[in-house]
Amino acid sequence: MNRKLYHGAAYYPELWDADVIEQDIKIMKETGINVVRIGEFAWSKMEPEEGQINIGFFTDMISQLYENGIETVMCTPTPTPPIWFSYDHPERMFVDGQGTVMGHGSRQHACTNNAYFREKAAVITEHIARAVGHLPGVIGWQLDNEFKAHVAECMCQTCKTLWHGWLEERYGTIGQLNEAWGTHIWSEYYHRFEQVPQPAPAPFLHHSSLRTMYQLFSMEKIAEFADEQAAIIRKYSDAPITHNSSVAFHVDNERLFKNLDFASFDTYASSTNTPAYLINCDLWRNFKKGRAFWIMETSPSFSASLESYAAPHPNGYLKAEAVAAYALGAEAFCYWLWRQQRTGCEQPHGSVISAWGKPTVGYTNVLEVEQARKEIESVLLATIPAQAELAITYSDRSKAYLKTEPHQKLNHRGLVTAFYERFLTLGIHRDLIPEGADLDGYKLLFTPFIHYLSPDYINRAQQFVEKGGIWVVGPLTGGRTEHHTIHTDAALGQLEQLAGVETLYTYPMDGTNSIGRAFGESAPLGMWSAVFETKEAAAVGIIEEGLAPGKAFITEQKYGKGKIVMLGSMPMGEEGDMLLKKLIGHYAGEAQLSLRTNVTQGTIVAPRVGDGYTVWVIVNMDGHGGSVTISQEGYDLLKQQPLFPGKLEIGKYEYRLIQFEDTRRY
Amino acid sequence: MNRKLYHGAAYYPELWDADVIEQDIKIMKETGINVVRIGEFAWSKMEPEEGQINIGFFTDMISQLYENGIETVMCTPTPTPPIWFSYDHPERMFVDGQGTVMGHGSRQHACTNNAYFREKAAVITEHIARAVGHLPGVIGWQLDNEFKAHVAECMCQTCKTLWHGWLEERYGTIGQLNEAWGTHIWSEYYHRFEQVPQPAPAPFLHHSSLRTMYQLFSMEKIAEFADEQAAIIRKYSDAPITHNSSVAFHVDNERLFKNLDFASFDTYASSTNTPAYLINCDLWRNFKKGRAFWIMETSPSFSASLESYAAPHPNGYLKAEAVAAYALGAEAFCYWLWRQQRTGCEQPHGSVISAWGKPTVGYTNVLEVEQARKEIESVLLATIPAQAELAITYSDRSKAYLKTEPHQKLNHRGLVTAFYERFLTLGIHRDLIPEGADLDGYKLLFTPFIHYLSPDYINRAQQFVEKGGIWVVGPLTGGRTEHHTIHTDAALGQLEQLAGVETLYTYPMDGTNSIGRAFGESAPLGMWSAVFETKEAAAVGIIEEGLAPGKAFITEQKYGKGKIVMLGSMPMGEEGDMLLKKLIGHYAGEAQLSLRTNVTQGTIVAPRVGDGYTVWVIVNMDGHGGSVTISQEGYDLLKQQPLFPGKLEIGKYEYRLIQFEDTRRY
Amino acid sequence: MNRKLYHGAAYYPELWDADVIEQDIKIMKETGINVVRIGEFAWSKMEPEEGQINIGFFTDMISQLYENGIETVMCTPTPTPPIWFSYDHPERMFVDGQGTVMGHGSRQHACTNNAYFREKAAVITEHIARAVGHLPGVIGWQLDNEFKAHVAECMCQTCKTLWHGWLEERYGTIGQLNEAWGTHIWSEYYHRFEQVPQPAPAPFLHHSSLRTMYQLFSMEKIAEFADEQAAIIRKYSDAPITHNSSVAFHVDNERLFKNLDFASFDTYASSTNTPAYLINCDLWRNFKKGRAFWIMETSPSFSASLESYAAPHPNGYLKAEAVAAYALGAEAFCYWLWRQQRTGCEQPHGSVISAWGKPTVGYTNVLEVEQARKEIESVLLATIPAQAELAITYSDRSKAYLKTEPHQKLNHRGLVTAFYERFLTLGIHRDLIPEGADLDGYKLLFTPFIHYLSPDYINRAQQFVEKGGIWVVGPLTGGRTEHHTIHTDAALGQLEQLAGVETLYTYPMDGTNSIGRAFGESAPLGMWSAVFETKEAAAVGIIEEGLAPGKAFITEQKYGKGKIVMLGSMPMGEEGDMLLKKLIGHYAGEAQLSLRTNVTQGTIVAPRVGDGYTVWVIVNMDGHGGSVTISQEGYDLLKQQPLFPGKLEIGKYEYRLIQFEDTRRY
Repeated sequence: MNRKLYHGAAYYPELWDADVIEQDIKIMKETGINVVRIGEFAWSKMEPEEGQINIGFFTDMISQLYENGIETVMCTPTPTPPIWFSYDHPERMFVDGQGTVMGHGSRQHACTNNAYFREKAAVITEHIARAVGHLPGVIGWQLDNEFKAHVAECMCQTCKTLWHGWLEERYGTIGQLNEAWGTHIWSEYYHRFEQVPQPAPAPFLHHSSLRTMYQLFSMEKIAEFADEQAAIIRKYSDAPITHNSSVAFHVDNERLFKNLDFASFDTYASSTNTPAYLINCDLWRNFKKGRAFWIMETSPSFSASLESYAAPHPNGYLKAEAVAAYALGAEAFCYWLWRQQRTGCEQPHGSVISAWGKPTVGYTNVLEVEQARKEIESVLLATIPAQAELAITYSDRSKAYLKTEPHQKLNHRGLVTAFYERFLTLGIHRDLIPEGADLDGYKLLFTPFIHYLSPDYINRAQQFVEKGGIWVVGPLTGGRTEHHTIHTDAALGQLEQLAGVETLYTYPMDGTNSIGRAFGESAPLGMWSAVFETKEAAAVGIIEEGLAPGKAFITEQKYGKGKIVMLGSMPMGEEGDMLLKKLIGHYAGEAQLSLRTNVTQGTIVAPRVGDGYTVWVIVNMDGHGGSVTISQEGYDLLKQQPLFPGKLEIGKYEYRLIQFEDTRRY
Repeated sequence: MNRKLYHGAAYYPELWDADVIEQDIKIMKETGINVVRIGEFAWSKMEPEEGQINIGFFTDMISQLYENGIETVMCTPTPTPPIWFSYDHPERMFVDGQGTVMGHGSRQHACTNNAYFREKAAVITEHIARAVGHLPGVIGWQLDNEFKAHVAECMCQTCKTLWHGWLEERYGTIGQLNEAWGTHIWSEYYHRFEQVPQPAPAPFLHHSSLRTMYQLFSMEKIAEFADEQAAIIRKYSDAPITHNSSVAFHVDNERLFKNLDFASFDTYASSTNTPAYLINCDLWRNFKKGRAFWIMETSPSFSASLESYAAPHPNGYLKAEAVAAYALGAEAFCYWLWRQQRTGCEQPHGSVISAWGKPTVGYTNVLEVEQARKEIESVLLATIPAQAELAITYSDRSKAYLKTEPHQKLNHRGLVTAFYERFLTLGIHRDLIPEGADLDGYKLLFTPFIHYLSPDYINRAQQFVEKGGIWVVGPLTGGRTEHHTIHTDAALGQLEQLAGVETLYTYPMDGTNSIGRAFGESAPLGMWSAVFETKEAAAVGIIEEGLAPGKAFITEQKYGKGKIVMLGSMPMGEEGDMLLKKLIGHYAGEAQLSLRTNVTQGTIVAPRVGDGYTVWVIVNMDGHGGSVTISQEGYDLLKQQPLFPGKLEIGKYEYRLIQFEDTRRY
Repeated sequence: MNRKLYHGAAYYPELWDADVIEQDIKIMKETGINVVRIGEFAWSKMEPEEGQINIGFFTDMISQLYENGIETVMCTPTPTPPIWFSYDHPERMFVDGQGTVMGHGSRQHACTNNAYFREKAAVITEHIARAVGHLPGVIGWQLDNEFKAHVAECMCQTCKTLWHGWLEERYGTIGQLNEAWGTHIWSEYYHRFEQVPQPAPAPFLHHSSLRTMYQLFSMEKIAEFADEQAAIIRKYSDAPITHNSSVAFHVDNERLFKNLDFASFDTYASSTNTPAYLINCDLWRNFKKGRAFWIMETSPSFSASLESYAAPHPNGYLKAEAVAAYALGAEAFCYWLWRQQRTGCEQPHGSVISAWGKPTVGYTNVLEVEQARKEIESVLLATIPAQAELAITYSDRSKAYLKTEPHQKLNHRGLVTAFYERFLTLGIHRDLIPEGADLDGYKLLFTPFIHYLSPDYINRAQQFVEKGGIWVVGPLTGGRTEHHTIHTDAALGQLEQLAGVETLYTYPMDGTNSIGRAFGESAPLGMWSAVFETKEAAAVGIIEEGLAPGKAFITEQKYGKGKIVMLGSMPMGEEGDMLLKKLIGHYAGEAQLSLRTNVTQGTIVAPRVGDGYTVWVIVNMDGHGGSVTISQEGYDLLKQQPLFPGKLEIGKYEYRLIQFEDTRRY
């Protein structure tokens, strides 16, 4: 890709006449759109009858766009196999958990593991790659669209067979599976892999191992499909490949992006839920570390379908969103969609231009984004996002374990976002990192809500601690094995010895009137908890009331040059929030985090690093304005004037670029 | 039919012994029941074994009733095909949206489009018509019972084939369907009509065109069944034919009644929701204009089934219901049911007589109805309901569009009833009229909640305006094409030019803090909205706050001798209610509506026209009493005394008949 | 069984290695566990491949336990047929009400009526009985586990055929079924039994008779399976047989226990819902009158599964639970489960020992139970629970009628428990007795919430009244026939003449502003009600406001030496609760109940009878402590000191054993 900041939109030229397309391109240029994404649902346009493939419309389109200064991200159209694929072939279709076979007429209706689907997907993708791969306008590729957004695990016969193969590969023999899963429970015991059921309807809950492994199987298979498709494209194109994913989909993003070239995501977070937006930036930056990510889809104003709509963004918010994204590592900020759909189930969805070719309610906000992009582009291209000192491990595989065992309807995304929000509020620059991420460069690591901690992760965290890091483990972390069973050596397995504790009891603290005290705060404790007897460790948080008074729920164990902190229970409510913030603040202090600012809630500071200087990108995200305390003289790059230490006021949705020499202290 | 007011009940003599029937007839006579409806579920009694048909029981029954002064509405028994039809024939049964095949044991279990069903339905109906069509007691016919009350669109294979035929008839070629629906979206594109799916399970929403058209198809087919059945009956009987329908069922009532002879409905509205009751009277009066309608079913006290019950009516309410219905154009007021069911799933349902032959808790109220009927009969037979000056267009086809695209769980019936209630509260006499109704005679026309406005409707409304009418369009009106797609010339298509406006934006105003001001009132604006730039039109309602400040949400365009008023947004909450009432009052004033009274809320005035005089039927519906201001000397027909101008107090559930000479002013 | 109090746990040795088992037995002995229950899900361990049966592990296990002083309740493993039974045999599996076929992987997945299931179940049970039936350690048998806990009525083809046979046996001819059910309603009418459907999906509700009879059929069949299994065991073992049932399951407990030897139940009632716990003791004591019951499963601390958990018990509660159970007639108090599951879907469930072999959060409470057991054992073995003077009839068949006809989502268990709680609060010793129980020895009988009262029950109640009993009938009692239809002679059938009343009306009183007055209290009346005209009876409760003012809702009819009290409506809310307590108190006084104590709410007194003396077991159940007034000198058996009349304070979860000479007055 070229070194620029992209401002783009999803575009469906196959749905419009030539004169409309001409009008679109004209308005795109006026608006400042410099990239469009095309092709993702266009299989029937490319291959109306089976085997009659013609990509000409799209090669022409890409050229026409390129001639007008607009580059293209080309998509494969695999989320929507045409009617010649679907009609009269229920065996090719997705089957849900109730056994219902999906029909044609929406999207993601095919089983992506179906052999014929894979064959036809390979053919169409090869045709597309061959036809457009060499075109100068093509700067990137998107595989498919939002894998597993509308569907979870497929229960078709193809998947059943693949599942048995996957299990055999994982477990070797059925005996080892029986042993690992303890299948004599409820006489589930299997003689052959082919007997292992899919988690289909049953009178009561399925076995945890079966449920979790089936999710892991499904996530692996969709990533394999991506790998397969990427390999085909690479035969014909050097342009980098991505997929527009999300934490909301049933995929393992770490695995998915492993063999792709850059990471991107879609988000339709509400303007009133800034953390749910920013968490994506702080996570996606780390799926392909050192490489910019893309926001591939976001609404210029509001999302909608036939059956629902969100509130349109307040004026000004879109600009704040874009600047925050670019500052946190995005190379592109793209809308879904350019021109409002004329037909289908997303007709009401917000767009840049209406179906009748006029500016929408969000249009002036799009212009503001373009103005901001121009203002900040040179500064941003000269800098890169600062690596955070603090990391929070994020895991979609852990999401699968929690989906199997949600205790009380716990929702992974909600838990993680609420946990993340506290770091935002405290003004601490942070990375969300995948399980397999390198821990070098971090000083403080949080590992919450991960039922199963892999030995590999523990080993790397141990090395991180040895070298001086502080590792905070919990809550809800480490209590399950790889197979989603209970440890039999200790409640938290090998972790306990490392942390210098013995877990006395594990039980749900909700409803037991448990009160914990730590860091000068007392708070109710809840969720599934581990109560500790300290061995080598020190008790830092004590249970004052409840079923285990006097025992510890937070412990500290020095290890090497660092420290392992166990957080066995979840402090609840406002008091719990305060206690957790005190905990974070405490260890941020101990770890001597420097990338921390005294910023008011609702405003963010994104630190970026240039050659011998730092730039703070400050953005007010909540529309109430805010302030940041500046402790060192800097230079306001937009106002082009020096900035003296003191309180810097930030207006409603305002952004500022402040440059500091590298000797500054935050 | 004879010129009388009917007081009737549904009766199931096939379920009882001869002595019980004899007792029933005796009590009916004492009670004043002069008509019963029989036969609607009695197929197994008439044709216990396939082909062994005997209608004798019913001919005898009708004669026995007639000899006792009780006339009969005869039903066809088609909602409940016997076991010889259902057993071992899943292909004849109704299939729901999840693909579940219905079984025997309830009602509406057959697919009414199944060819064998149609054949057997024709046979039994012909036998019945031949046997009873000539009997003097038979004064009318009811086809089937509550078409599509328990089921919506059928998904069986028969329907699939018919669906393809219906599409072919509508669209001619598959190419024209593809074009109209824009099926390249999501690669839905079809090569042959037989490929077009039914809206069966899919991973996400189906295409709007598919969903809406499938509903229109289903509504047409059930009406065709009614046509077919009516034609058979007419071979043997001159008695008029109806169907007991409702706004709650999945039918197009305008189409359904087109080829029937008179309109009737069933209602079980709560006594605390008077508008939900009255709206039926004001609508059904207009399905067969100039011909009295029937209330075919209403509860004498409370509705109930095994799984639910409603609160019994307060004493006195039933009489108010009956008098209001007769006054608003009903020829009959009939109960469901005469004798409480001994068996089945409606055993607990309220009735006139208990299963053990005794008066129920509602019985004295039924006697009150009969007394009232006798009191008012001669006055009502000498008059007819006054045509309203104000009309609100009601459309079941529009309901289908809204069911496809409900935005935020919008419910057509609730929206329309709440809109209607304001006219009631303002004391304005009103007609609800079907889309195809003649607009002659009206001065003020409201067209709310109609996603798709047909060119035919627009043309007729335009002529109405030309001749001096005021047409208020919206909210939620005109934004979709016939095929349930978005206009591409303008947000509201041809309507905009006519109304002298340009729709700048359409978007959901909920959650955007939008405030509109008009007619001296300010109110929050919500729902999916159209924001106007006035061209020739004048801005009457201005958006004061929100995303489009200064733009119009209400506009006025003079056209011919009349005026087109666009209402682009929904004023919400109590303030919105006030604003809407001001709007209605304003245009009622401009239109110089005379059929308006100064009546307190909860009391109604139904104006009727005699030969050179008018009669007001005044009824208190809410049980709190009320008053009406009389501005001209009248004559109290029940008290037989003059009535002088001033405030007339109306007691709890009281009714009054006041006659005025035609020179009066309201 | 031996004369001792058992303290036990469920144990799954087949899931653990020999060394773990050894450790378990060691800790059991330390803990005081003297009985374990084994084998209930172990079919795959016993018969891993079809026909390869080996019970050796369990015979060894029983011997090993016995050698360590631990006795065994042996289970049949029929709730979990192995994969060789399930795999590729959907026709053997349970089918739910939507037609969904259950798969392998959970439990209760087989249709228990399937012939092959019955055959294989007989084979495995015969092998087990032969192998372990003679072992000295085996003191009892449990059949299967929690019949119909996760599933209700099966809809498979096997059940369909058996259903037809059951109907034929019950009704003789299809004509008699048609007559009894009145099947001409909705043309349901059947020609052959094989045509009668199962209550599978239909457009609206099924016929009440069909729904109720299908439940009775299902309950009879599962009891027949129990009978069949018990007969096999008895060929090889003299140890008594039971099943661990519950009021929450879809079984007829009275019928189920008829041919078993002793009664047992499982309960996981919350510590905050004492009545839901105690009601089991007061009911199960009467399924096998004169024989001690078992609490076969209860949590030592909290119940949990992958998807939910309950709050752990407060410390001290478990001991109160155990003492209350023993005092009210339990011979055993057993936990589910001994060692936390390592795998499966119940991993998080509370246990005595963790999966890693350590005491759990509940362990000290288990030790307290053992201490209490030792303290009270000799006193309890020397006494038996006093027969109550007051009985409330409990019927699972009635639950089936209410499930068919729940009016407004009425829940049988909730209704009965709330009704029962009042007797507890009033300190009245009470029996819940099955419908067929002998009424001798009772003075006051309540019969609430029984839609259908059998002639046999009415005759026995009539004899009870003749001899001096007071019988309170209602609410919601007697209004349906055996076939779940409406009486046609009188609303409540033969009951009315007996009670000297005529039911004028039946209707739902909710929402009718009905107020009733009786025993000096006024209260709103609700639920489906019967309004009485007194004939011979006296009006005791009068409807003051509503639709039937002046009529009676409570009547009294003297009959023989006793009295029949009709309660036609449900007093609602706090005032209703007060009125009902006054009613109970009034008739308790008239009946001269002596087994009544002046105990504070949350504390119970369980009276037991010894040879010439009485022992009160007093237990505080709510953790707040309480008091009882002692009116006669007694002897505190635990403190070994006299107790003088006056107020006796009971501490938090404290229990006391007070002995009185038989001349005492309560």
